[in-house]
Amino acid sequence: MNALQSIRIVLVEPTHPGNIGAVARAIKTMGLQRLVLVNPKKYPHYEASKRAAGAEDVLDSAVVVPDLAAAIGNCTLVLGTSVRDREVSWPTVTPDQAAQMVLEHLPDDDAVQGPREVAVLFGRESSGLSNAELELCQQQIRIPANDEYSSLNLASAVQIICYEMRMAARRARDAETATQQGGSAVDQRRQPATRAQQDAHLAHLESALQVLDFVKSKPPTVLLRKLARLYNKAQLTTEEVQILRGILSAIEDRVGRS
Amino acid sequence: MNALQSIRIVLVEPTHPGNIGAVARAIKTMGLQRLVLVNPKKYPHYEASKRAAGAEDVLDSAVVVPDLAAAIGNCTLVLGTSVRDREVSWPTVTPDQAAQMVLEHLPDDDAVQGPREVAVLFGRESSGLSNAELELCQQQIRIPANDEYSSLNLASAVQIICYEMRMAARRARDAETATQQGGSAVDQRRQPATRAQQDAHLAHLESALQVLDFVKSKPPTVLLRKLARLYNKAQLTTEEVQILRGILSAIEDRVGRS
Repeated sequence: MNALQSIRIVLVEPTHPGNIGAVARAIKTMGLQRLVLVNPKKYPHYEASKRAAGAEDVLDSAVVVPDLAAAIGNCTLVLGTSVRDREVSWPTVTPDQAAQMVLEHLPDDDAVQGPREVAVLFGRESSGLSNAELELCQQQIRIPANDEYSSLNLASAVQIICYEMRMAARRARDAETATQQGGSAVDQRRQPATRAQQDAHLAHLESALQVLDFVKSKPPTVLLRKLARLYNKAQLTTEEVQILRGILSAIEDRVGRS
Repeated sequence: MNALQSIRIVLVEPTHPGNIGAVARAIKTMGLQRLVLVNPKKYPHYEASKRAAGAEDVLDSAVVVPDLAAAIGNCTLVLGTSVRDREVSWPTVTPDQAAQMVLEHLPDDDAVQGPREVAVLFGRESSGLSNAELELCQQQIRIPANDEYSSLNLASAVQIICYEMRMAARRARDAETATQQGGSAVDQRRQPATRAQQDAHLAHLESALQVLDFVKSKPPTVLLRKLARLYNKAQLTTEEVQILRGILSAIEDRVGRS
């Protein structure tokens, strides 16, 4: 179950310190241990320690960061959690599908494929994740809830996701079909691009579209959001980012010269 | 999802009224509604109402009984929940297996097979269900937890079980609609692009790269194969193909003019 320890649970601006403690407890019961807090309203706080109830080690090793970029910059897979429908349709998976995806992304042995880092984001108690935050995610995990009452407690949402991660890790362990992969050297080109590399690509894409006068024709924010979603779906490798940015440079070069 | 309303969640001698409220909330988020309290230590209690947070209707209709027999006497399937190993080995299922079992037990239409009643038992916060109580259960549901820290909060345990019940009900519903469904209205933009549309995009991409003199620098077949793989991964929609081809046309237009 080593894979579970490469998964960081990221709480974005949690309001209630008690929830942070309850989340630490939920994480630890399922064998995870990494907690990242983005700009928590009150932390550290005795309420957090009280609700952690034996999972204080998770709190002690929790990382507090000022913004989301600092929480996920080096991640190769970022998933965002939601119970709501959005106007824009995001690629959406159920918790069990997400867990399967994460386990497939995380090899048992880092030496084979190089380091992988997974983050699962949980939004504010009152309003969840913003659209801008969801745009940083390759997938949205939608917890299926009662349409008339989808008010999942933050720790309950974390519990469900971590439970599915544990179930997927158990299935992976149990499956004896896991054939020996014959230890090859890490292929850097096939490494998933980090969030920072993906963002640099999207920024480059935007500037190339401006050079092309393309963004004038449509509202650029909607267009760029659609393109971001498209490339998120593709789960780009570092090599693919290089190829795409090579094309963008060629556009800027050729059109800039004209 | 009618089946979900035939499932009663039974808390055996819960100690903390706050947990009862949190359980009501967990139940309702997953579309269940029936709660039975066996000899609760403190109930009704303001802590229960406070933690229910919008699920007061579940509390209001909760049934309080003096002993377990009164809670499950008319049930046709009784399951008991545990995170621990027992000395005696009980027939044990995981939460997803239990949910499948419950849904198969509950027919969609009572008229077909007569009334069915399912109870899922959750034990005391401190000590769980006694062996005598587990003996009344057809199956034990074992929530897979960290061996070194299996201290699941009561409401978290209920949340996981109710989540799996909802997932099983969704699967059953989806299977049914899949067999019934004729052509309903679809959003054309979100339709997956056909293979022909994708191939037209790739051909367009190739010609735009030629206009850019980009394909000279690398063996074009390898490069184009990599780009084809990238866009395959993204599972493009028809709208996305239109956007990408719009950009390619803009490239051809701008560079061609220069």
